[in-house]
Amino acid sequence: MKITGTFIDEISHDIPHQNWGEREWDQDFQHMKAIGIDTVILIRCGYRKFITYPSAYLQQNYACYSPPVDLVDLYLKLADKYGMKFYFGLYDSGKQWDGGTPEDEVIPNREVVKEVWERYGHYRSFKGWYLSMEISRRVLGAAEAFRDLGLLCKKVSNGLPTLISPWMDGKKAVLASSSQLNKEDSVSLKEHEYEWRKMFQIMHEAIDAVAFQDGHLDYDELPDFFRLNKKLADEFGLECWTNAETFDRDMPIKFMPIKFEKLKLKLDAARDANFKKAITFEFSHFMSPQSAYRQAGHLYNRYKEYVSELDVS
Amino acid sequence: MKITGTFIDEISHDIPHQNWGEREWDQDFQHMKAIGIDTVILIRCGYRKFITYPSAYLQQNYACYSPPVDLVDLYLKLADKYGMKFYFGLYDSGKQWDGGTPEDEVIPNREVVKEVWERYGHYRSFKGWYLSMEISRRVLGAAEAFRDLGLLCKKVSNGLPTLISPWMDGKKAVLASSSQLNKEDSVSLKEHEYEWRKMFQIMHEAIDAVAFQDGHLDYDELPDFFRLNKKLADEFGLECWTNAETFDRDMPIKFMPIKFEKLKLKLDAARDANFKKAITFEFSHFMSPQSAYRQAGHLYNRYKEYVSELDVS
Amino acid sequence: MKITGTFIDEISHDIPHQNWGEREWDQDFQHMKAIGIDTVILIRCGYRKFITYPSAYLQQNYACYSPPVDLVDLYLKLADKYGMKFYFGLYDSGKQWDGGTPEDEVIPNREVVKEVWERYGHYRSFKGWYLSMEISRRVLGAAEAFRDLGLLCKKVSNGLPTLISPWMDGKKAVLASSSQLNKEDSVSLKEHEYEWRKMFQIMHEAIDAVAFQDGHLDYDELPDFFRLNKKLADEFGLECWTNAETFDRDMPIKFMPIKFEKLKLKLDAARDANFKKAITFEFSHFMSPQSAYRQAGHLYNRYKEYVSELDVS
Repeated sequence: MKITGTFIDEISHDIPHQNWGEREWDQDFQHMKAIGIDTVILIRCGYRKFITYPSAYLQQNYACYSPPVDLVDLYLKLADKYGMKFYFGLYDSGKQWDGGTPEDEVIPNREVVKEVWERYGHYRSFKGWYLSMEISRRVLGAAEAFRDLGLLCKKVSNGLPTLISPWMDGKKAVLASSSQLNKEDSVSLKEHEYEWRKMFQIMHEAIDAVAFQDGHLDYDELPDFFRLNKKLADEFGLECWTNAETFDRDMPIKFMPIKFEKLKLKLDAARDANFKKAITFEFSHFMSPQSAYRQAGHLYNRYKEYVSELDVS
Repeated sequence: MKITGTFIDEISHDIPHQNWGEREWDQDFQHMKAIGIDTVILIRCGYRKFITYPSAYLQQNYACYSPPVDLVDLYLKLADKYGMKFYFGLYDSGKQWDGGTPEDEVIPNREVVKEVWERYGHYRSFKGWYLSMEISRRVLGAAEAFRDLGLLCKKVSNGLPTLISPWMDGKKAVLASSSQLNKEDSVSLKEHEYEWRKMFQIMHEAIDAVAFQDGHLDYDELPDFFRLNKKLADEFGLECWTNAETFDRDMPIKFMPIKFEKLKLKLDAARDANFKKAITFEFSHFMSPQSAYRQAGHLYNRYKEYVSELDVS
Repeated sequence: MKITGTFIDEISHDIPHQNWGEREWDQDFQHMKAIGIDTVILIRCGYRKFITYPSAYLQQNYACYSPPVDLVDLYLKLADKYGMKFYFGLYDSGKQWDGGTPEDEVIPNREVVKEVWERYGHYRSFKGWYLSMEISRRVLGAAEAFRDLGLLCKKVSNGLPTLISPWMDGKKAVLASSSQLNKEDSVSLKEHEYEWRKMFQIMHEAIDAVAFQDGHLDYDELPDFFRLNKKLADEFGLECWTNAETFDRDMPIKFMPIKFEKLKLKLDAARDANFKKAITFEFSHFMSPQSAYRQAGHLYNRYKEYVSELDVS
């Protein structure tokens, strides 16, 4: 199972920034391309007051700071240059985390989607939308919000595909700011199936692919959950991808590149479940030869060896 | 607003040491000089039992370990060599953190200041004193301790200038050893004004400059607090500097280099408040091209681009 | 006091993996050799479901994952190549941490030791066993488990030496996943002496060397504890080594390379207590020039300077 897509983690909640300029980003797209990545997904275009492009709307209505660089433009140019697909991640106001509702995230994106499509829709590489809300359990209104956002994106862009990447509420689903690595009350297969069938019933016409994050479960729990996710996706005609996290959730340093063996276990499980595509969160910090974390460059090499063995067999 | 000063973080509470030798420090002073840094400030000459120079007094009276290198001598030589000003940071016994009082920090420094001036006062670059006690709120006896220490330094050294760098008790003022990033009970503008006016009344004749740490507030709270700090400093005839922290307080990894955009927001706010000088905590870990954190080298490059744009405009 | 041995940290609980391949490991053995390291100690051959060699027994009985590389074979080949001694670290099922007993760790190792000796016993460099259980206080059954494991290893391998590396229950003995750096209730010298005399009475015939971890006490507590450890080891005819940890337990980032000054304090204390040998946890992350942590390469240089001063004097 090869990784053919990656998130781009601007704006980040919890991964320290690398302070790359245009030259480093260009180099990174080349590193991605060299291992077969054909899709880059902006994790979100903004989070609270930090934004990736100079949105007049967000600066006026959400008091966002004026960004020093237009990263959306930069990424689209690079995606054009290297023949890759770019998915645009929607704005996250942070309100739903502060006692708000999923609907709070729909409101700004009604304008953002229009603004962005007008501004950047002409780029050849603009190929899809990433509905950036992250959920796991059946939160009231979340499926409806995904549906509304997905339909909106499709309407504006003549039906470009949409992607979501929820997490599975396993034992490693703890806050990044927590010193704990595990929790007691994780979701069961049965609960996961019940809740996601309900949610897919509501949103399935508005989304094209679902890439559950693979990092919150133990490695030997993945096969069962992956089979279930594939079954649910098939039931609703969705593409089933995996979001193979390349950072290590088992370590007290949050977060460093994952041990290759763990990544391999996760990719093998996705292959066995017949997933359509593997993407990762995310290449530039955790797999790139030029990452600030040198372990990432070694992971890149181990991954390349793994891929060349796949190609032989 | 350019950064023209930096702390040197030996001895550190919470930032892992880089284990540099003389060659690396010489190289770092060159990197500093290249972006216009003209002032280096030793954060403290000792903390509890670890000290930066072979102080007979501290080894005998505070059971300090014999340091493997005389860092004070090294830094003064390098400051001489590169035409920079050196501020000497006082000793921190740790007693005030262990249920003691600010007066506990005055006692050893009565001897340290004399010892140091005798030993190193002849260096051309010895240009000031940094009163290394870190406080934020009106702690009983703290302003008096600053006053006593400042007057002592000035008396011994024929009036060399003194600097303090308190923090503002904003929502990010949590312990480094805490897994939390925020707290609920942050200081209000009114409390900050009330408390610091009281403290400046007591200590203003003993200090020349105040550089509040800029990292504990949210970015959009800075303009109000900066204006207030400038007003208070002006009221008492103090120079108002900013201590522009170059590490990121928003991340669960404590501590990595800051995203350039955040640094820019903070420097712009200091410029708008007409601050006299910007220093940083600190160059060698968080901005240096040879830092163990590669993000720091990229921050250096982003900062250089920013400065060259300033120079053009 | 020179460091002449190092652990190899595969499989790790809490230190992020570097994702090295054969080339990097070969290079690292060269770096070790260059500073006089003659002994490498595999920290454990497996932990819970992750293992370092393709053990049929562990895969069948403990549901372990099939490892992508046979690291035991790789390390033995490299130890042969560079004329070093290899100590094999036993399997840790994790059961004792989950409410089990030390006996739970004896059971799988009865088979592992036989399997490993058959598979790898022919390597010239296979020179000893590391009983990988980590304890500190008098846990019921622990000394008996060490005794049984030690006797087993010796019986299978014609009496090859065995090593243990317990920790001392000082104030820094907190969980890696805790955000705290210290605890209140640390062991006293008297308790340490009482408990370890009891334990050595039970296990002394099964072990050859004890290397207490040196990182959980304050630096100025080490001389007393080291003298006591030497006295106890002498009393039972054991070699007294020190496990000089090269990571820093005083920092909120868990874990980064230690400041050289601290390492020197610990090595000097071990020398003053007439310890026989110093090993470290561990070279490859915290002292190696090719470590992902650049501070490690600088520590390597500072350590080399220290050693060359020792050689002169």
